Amino acid sequence: MTSSTPARADGRRPDQLRPVTITRRFLDAGEGSVLVEFGGTKVLCVASFTEGVPRWRKGSGQGWVTAEYAMLPRATSSRSDRESVRGKVGGRTHEISRLVGRSLRAVVDVAALGESTVVLDCDVLQADGGTRTAAITGAYVALADAVAWAQGAGIVKPGRQVLRDSVAAVSVGIVDGVPVLDLPYVEDVRAETDMNVVVTGAGRFVEVQGTAEQTPFDRAELDALLDLALAGTAELTRLQAEVLAAPASDGTATRQVMAP
Amino acid sequence: MTSSTPARADGRRPDQLRPVTITRRFLDAGEGSVLVEFGGTKVLCVASFTEGVPRWRKGSGQGWVTAEYAMLPRATSSRSDRESVRGKVGGRTHEISRLVGRSLRAVVDVAALGESTVVLDCDVLQADGGTRTAAITGAYVALADAVAWAQGAGIVKPGRQVLRDSVAAVSVGIVDGVPVLDLPYVEDVRAETDMNVVVTGAGRFVEVQGTAEQTPFDRAELDALLDLALAGTAELTRLQAEVLAAPASDGTATRQVMAP
Amino acid sequence: MTSSTPARADGRRPDQLRPVTITRRFLDAGEGSVLVEFGGTKVLCVASFTEGVPRWRKGSGQGWVTAEYAMLPRATSSRSDRESVRGKVGGRTHEISRLVGRSLRAVVDVAALGESTVVLDCDVLQADGGTRTAAITGAYVALADAVAWAQGAGIVKPGRQVLRDSVAAVSVGIVDGVPVLDLPYVEDVRAETDMNVVVTGAGRFVEVQGTAEQTPFDRAELDALLDLALAGTAELTRLQAEVLAAPASDGTATRQVMAP
Amino acid sequence: MTSSTPARADGRRPDQLRPVTITRRFLDAGEGSVLVEFGGTKVLCVASFTEGVPRWRKGSGQGWVTAEYAMLPRATSSRSDRESVRGKVGGRTHEISRLVGRSLRAVVDVAALGESTVVLDCDVLQADGGTRTAAITGAYVALADAVAWAQGAGIVKPGRQVLRDSVAAVSVGIVDGVPVLDLPYVEDVRAETDMNVVVTGAGRFVEVQGTAEQTPFDRAELDALLDLALAGTAELTRLQAEVLAAPASDGTATRQVMAP
Amino acid sequence: MTSSTPARADGRRPDQLRPVTITRRFLDAGEGSVLVEFGGTKVLCVASFTEGVPRWRKGSGQGWVTAEYAMLPRATSSRSDRESVRGKVGGRTHEISRLVGRSLRAVVDVAALGESTVVLDCDVLQADGGTRTAAITGAYVALADAVAWAQGAGIVKPGRQVLRDSVAAVSVGIVDGVPVLDLPYVEDVRAETDMNVVVTGAGRFVEVQGTAEQTPFDRAELDALLDLALAGTAELTRLQAEVLAAPASDGTATRQVMAP
Amino acid sequence: MTSSTPARADGRRPDQLRPVTITRRFLDAGEGSVLVEFGGTKVLCVASFTEGVPRWRKGSGQGWVTAEYAMLPRATSSRSDRESVRGKVGGRTHEISRLVGRSLRAVVDVAALGESTVVLDCDVLQADGGTRTAAITGAYVALADAVAWAQGAGIVKPGRQVLRDSVAAVSVGIVDGVPVLDLPYVEDVRAETDMNVVVTGAGRFVEVQGTAEQTPFDRAELDALLDLALAGTAELTRLQAEVLAAPASDGTATRQVMAP
Repeated sequence: MTSSTPARADGRRPDQLRPVTITRRFLDAGEGSVLVEFGGTKVLCVASFTEGVPRWRKGSGQGWVTAEYAMLPRATSSRSDRESVRGKVGGRTHEISRLVGRSLRAVVDVAALGESTVVLDCDVLQADGGTRTAAITGAYVALADAVAWAQGAGIVKPGRQVLRDSVAAVSVGIVDGVPVLDLPYVEDVRAETDMNVVVTGAGRFVEVQGTAEQTPFDRAELDALLDLALAGTAELTRLQAEVLAAPASDGTATRQVMAP
Repeated sequence: MTSSTPARADGRRPDQLRPVTITRRFLDAGEGSVLVEFGGTKVLCVASFTEGVPRWRKGSGQGWVTAEYAMLPRATSSRSDRESVRGKVGGRTHEISRLVGRSLRAVVDVAALGESTVVLDCDVLQADGGTRTAAITGAYVALADAVAWAQGAGIVKPGRQVLRDSVAAVSVGIVDGVPVLDLPYVEDVRAETDMNVVVTGAGRFVEVQGTAEQTPFDRAELDALLDLALAGTAELTRLQAEVLAAPASDGTATRQVMAP
Repeated sequence: MTSSTPARADGRRPDQLRPVTITRRFLDAGEGSVLVEFGGTKVLCVASFTEGVPRWRKGSGQGWVTAEYAMLPRATSSRSDRESVRGKVGGRTHEISRLVGRSLRAVVDVAALGESTVVLDCDVLQADGGTRTAAITGAYVALADAVAWAQGAGIVKPGRQVLRDSVAAVSVGIVDGVPVLDLPYVEDVRAETDMNVVVTGAGRFVEVQGTAEQTPFDRAELDALLDLALAGTAELTRLQAEVLAAPASDGTATRQVMAP
Repeated sequence: MTSSTPARADGRRPDQLRPVTITRRFLDAGEGSVLVEFGGTKVLCVASFTEGVPRWRKGSGQGWVTAEYAMLPRATSSRSDRESVRGKVGGRTHEISRLVGRSLRAVVDVAALGESTVVLDCDVLQADGGTRTAAITGAYVALADAVAWAQGAGIVKPGRQVLRDSVAAVSVGIVDGVPVLDLPYVEDVRAETDMNVVVTGAGRFVEVQGTAEQTPFDRAELDALLDLALAGTAELTRLQAEVLAAPASDGTATRQVMAP
Repeated sequence: MTSSTPARADGRRPDQLRPVTITRRFLDAGEGSVLVEFGGTKVLCVASFTEGVPRWRKGSGQGWVTAEYAMLPRATSSRSDRESVRGKVGGRTHEISRLVGRSLRAVVDVAALGESTVVLDCDVLQADGGTRTAAITGAYVALADAVAWAQGAGIVKPGRQVLRDSVAAVSVGIVDGVPVLDLPYVEDVRAETDMNVVVTGAGRFVEVQGTAEQTPFDRAELDALLDLALAGTAELTRLQAEVLAAPASDGTATRQVMAP
Repeated sequence: MTSSTPARADGRRPDQLRPVTITRRFLDAGEGSVLVEFGGTKVLCVASFTEGVPRWRKGSGQGWVTAEYAMLPRATSSRSDRESVRGKVGGRTHEISRLVGRSLRAVVDVAALGESTVVLDCDVLQADGGTRTAAITGAYVALADAVAWAQGAGIVKPGRQVLRDSVAAVSVGIVDGVPVLDLPYVEDVRAETDMNVVVTGAGRFVEVQGTAEQTPFDRAELDALLDLALAGTAELTRLQAEVLAAPASDGTATRQVMAP
């Protein structure tokens, strides 16, 4: 990245993440509870481990992992009505909940889980772009804590490897013709193309969701965005590993990406 | 209080509040945003100041203050379904939302507000008894910040006194025959009588809601509970005043009740 | 009460109930069915006795008593939309339904009931203030008839005392600075403070719900209101006993409070 | 009808109505309010006269008449869930509401009504067969009172004839091969064919709704049922006229069909 | 019919059906699937044969036949909102679904069906009057195919006669004073009286639903309408028989009423 | 593709589309109506052109294009409940509706449209994989017809180019390790990775949505899938152009992809 590249509003280079903070054990409740922050975006991810599986899965010997994403009414700069008050869950909420659930299941061996269900509640306290990618990244840590709890409690059999890999996600997009990583709200609304990429610890794709809201994109742009996303998720993967390596006796374990 | 009084599970005296923390400016969004903690109970109270009033109030020249209370799914020890997913708001949620709104309106001069609406969103992140009283106590601080913001922004005319008084709330109850203040969950489920009391800074009642879930109570018990509640809310009133007195330049202003 | 006290709009003294009528066996359906009238307020209270209990209570050996309160669309001076048509039950309806249920359970020995459920449907045919207190007062009589029916039918074991006491309710409030008993709609809308009090036959409190819609109230006012409420509910308790003492062979049994 | 005809369970002849009672001004609220009883079936019909019409009718100069039918939960021998609690109006309720509305509009000159709406709320307090026909018969009387009220209040211009005729309804059916009039519940469930017939005062058909739940019926059976229905509605028309002829100064005006 | 009768807009005689087409096996899915066209009205009728019956019918040894009718949003000349999006099924949809279900059950021996359920989905692709009568007429053919499939699959015992008769339906009405058969939309909106008649193959009535939207009708008019309906349904019965007589090996079997 | 490649169940080569048929003017209603078939998948796409735009767009001078996707209950091999009956739209339905709308908007100049809205209803009559990609491909043709209609009717100003390009979509996936094009249901359920790609006529990407339900995929696999998708959508683009080139006087215009 040469010095001629125009600086972003917050002074970051195009390939730079915002400051990322992962706080484990944010609440007493929940088998895992994480506050994840991507810049101004704050998402509370709580894992609930419960015995039993949905009806359609009973008797399979396999577990289930699912997620529910939601935004508090004033997570954004103007207040939105609550979905509970409107009496229905909106399309965007549904779509992101499904994405988070699928992303986590991609790294879970549901057979090793036994007939248990882990629900990941991802509630956005403050939204400044990238809420779904922050949710996936934080929910993985909460899930890892919940799985460890279940192993400690003897609910998951010892020696079974429930998590086959880690998973993290980041947004990328083309803003003013420049491919950039981890878009805050001000960039998101101006992006010609917006892509969310979910990647395993091993660097394989779980989800690639690119959308041209304004201008269709070509193969070269797609490749540039994927390069950025792979580098960004690799950094997030390191952060997840670091925070999970902190001893459980620590009380709250927090780690933050350093500005490079 | 003599030494013969049986200690409470958390070691408090019957007339002692749990540690109470009020953190102002918890979020960037919201004209006021407060994290209030009564022991393990954590409620995020965010005030949204918007122009205009509900239809039935248009043209009156008067403003409106309302509240919406909700619990995150895993605020409690076992997960509850989201009300948005169930498609309707439950009776308890409705009841508490109405209580919080009424309590705040009791100290607001809606004429001084002009035709503006303040919505107080009280989302329980973690529930350990007393969520509605914590919500009222924290929401008042968020409301005060939102009113100050509106005065600074010239939306409320200078010289108009929007807040006639402060308001705080606390729960009291009879547990094992002993009247106690500020019940955590373990006491709440065992209480013979449970009462929520909302009191102004001047020490007048806004709401008195006493319920005998197990044993009807007599006049003397009612009087003992009211004494406890008046002393507890007086302490909360002092804390609210202290936290609001911190300079706005402070960034986050946090104050905590000391253990006596 | 001296002659200098200003007369109320309907000529009553401050401590006087409206004419109260309780008509038992108003319908053929229902194990108990009562039309209760507090002045112009008319509430139909029907008890349905059914075997079995809600799922969360199964296997406990204990019964359950619950209530559903609703208003017909034209119970009031202008028509309201039906909650069934709007597709959801409003907050006020929920709140009152829960209050009625709790009030009745306070005098029921659910163990003596066995695993049976009594639902009390309280439908307001005409509303002129005090609908929730009339509902509680009438529902108790319908409940007593349903319990007697169940004992006659051998569903409740002989010798088991299901009802530990009776329960009645009345509203009190401060109107133009004067504490008054049993407010009709015209007083209700002008009251500075409004309180609903639920009291057992033995004169103990089940619920005390006081709300300052306009002006916070002090301890002396609270005491004056409680005095009025205890006297009013004592009178209602006598009426309930009288109407229930009428022989079952009577067909419809109606009793009315005399004007003192 | 010869002596060989088998008596009905309640001793009526096949062509005989149950005792029918129409009580006007049953409530203080409502521009017309009628309690109509067909034997054990009791329906409260309340007319609400309001200015304005539904959006799709605005500017037409024409009024609108509509109806909402509903059953209280314990109108029947076993309790049904409330439609408000289930969150939706059932198919049967919708169907009957639409039938009642159409039947009344058939005798109303909506142009004479001006841009006003009359809503007829028909709430079944007790159901013993024929609730929809009782509702239509009673709702007409409530509608007539509401129209008279509007004329008295100058809302409907003097000299305009809003009601072109009266309307009444009755059920007929084939039970054990015998065509019978005005079926109570015990006959209704056993009927091979069930028909509801709505007829104007002049004896013309507004609705004919015949259904073969068990055995398709032929032309001769249809003709026999229509004969019974025309005779029955003629009797109801006389009763409606009689009750409406009672002076308004009467307070409550009640009339009852005599057993012939 | 003399030459003096005014021609209908589409040139038909008053007693003439529109061109009617029944296409069997329109889809691969469904145990029976029929596209039925009455002129411009096109309804897709798909029969789903499933094991098991609704809960209230379990253990009876009897089957169940039910129907769901719906319109695509742009079946009509202007687009309507989807009922799924509005979150509730409208009254008209409910009413017609119930009518179609009842009409089919009138010719089904549910005991011969065993504990199986057939659901008939009738989705209107294009609406030009008579959608409910086309739905019944087409659904019968889909039902017959589903029953034959179940017999072939050994689900219904051989030798059991599930269908006791066929069933067809047609609309009739009085337009400009003239009784006419099978009304398209332009006649439907102008009709003084509108009647839907459901008739078995043997010529007996299953449903007669006549409605005077504008002018009440007399006995002579009713008789004329019934005559038209019986002749029209007889023609539809012949067409149903003809299309069902086509060999199953035919692939798609289509038959059309010829213009007489 | 060498001869060693295992044949697909339907005999296609990995890079071969199923037979695709596009039938224009399938209905009389709708400003554009298309039946699109991708093998056994049949989707009815109807465009409704209406004046006016959603509230949030009023006064912008710009139009809006939106879509609603739904499946008939028996589009699949076993029947699903209707979303209207369940009272809410499911997550998958929401997600696809949003995808179709976004895809079409990517080629529309909303300013050229003026303040008009085009709604594309995509109802799946039969589902055999690829319903969303068939819906997008067919909806574009219906949209083009609706735009042409609006230009003919003078609603869109002459000389304004509403459609900047065409748009088509196809699914690709990895089945048994082999990247394949246009997956039918039997391949879809077995695919390790599933991707939907939306491409403009000029070959630029509008949406890329790849999901690893079973095995995360690497960069090389992603590239192979994108190659297949670009070739497949190019073929669909040619077919769209061909069918739209048929003269309007043709009545129904149908075109089908030939087997290569």
